[in-house]
Amino acid sequence: MINQLIKTLKFNEAGLIPAIAQDATSKDVLMLAWMNQQALQKTLETGQVYYYSRSRQALWRKGESSGHTQELVELRYDCDADAILLLIKQIGPACHTNRPNCFFNALRDGKNLIIDNPIA
Amino acid sequence: MINQLIKTLKFNEAGLIPAIAQDATSKDVLMLAWMNQQALQKTLETGQVYYYSRSRQALWRKGESSGHTQELVELRYDCDADAILLLIKQIGPACHTNRPNCFFNALRDGKNLIIDNPIA
Repeated sequence: MINQLIKTLKFNEAGLIPAIAQDATSKDVLMLAWMNQQALQKTLETGQVYYYSRSRQALWRKGESSGHTQELVELRYDCDADAILLLIKQIGPACHTNRPNCFFNALRDGKNLIIDNPIA
Repeated sequence: MINQLIKTLKFNEAGLIPAIAQDATSKDVLMLAWMNQQALQKTLETGQVYYYSRSRQALWRKGESSGHTQELVELRYDCDADAILLLIKQIGPACHTNRPNCFFNALRDGKNLIIDNPIA
């Protein structure tokens, strides 16, 4: 199944595909990151979410240093097979800023607001 | 505010940034598409969501041919300022296949399933 999926998905010229992580229970969108084939394989094999860090150019198990891991509940992909949606169980905050999710900057009433605080 | 936002956001080498569209009410993730500066400007100016079509290499108002438009409720961006989350009101199905959203392919129980049907 993994091999078939890898054949189906369209990785970009850098060998990457964007992956949206969504909390399977709250449905909050937690983050957008990138996967390569190996990240996808390791995620499906282990049930723990792996990404590919573009800045560090390395495979990365989410939470490997922070402990804020992601457990895969279900993997979906879109009509064009060029984007992944990961339904997950998030342990602790998803964002490296210790906020619950990475999308804490909002435009509201003509202002740029930070709408979430770091978790203590 | 738009100019400040454009300065803050990190567009990639092609001048694009990924944008996740999420139904503001159901919290379903509807699609992932790409915006350039002009798409972002038009979206904020009009309240209707515009994207940049990479295949057609053109600005694209979502629903301009199908009528399945997206009304912006709130724009958010992530900690790295390299991904956008659009909370929207979706008119009709979001997907060009007439399914409610584009993420209708799921891996479940070792099988690749289509979990949504087109809306009649």
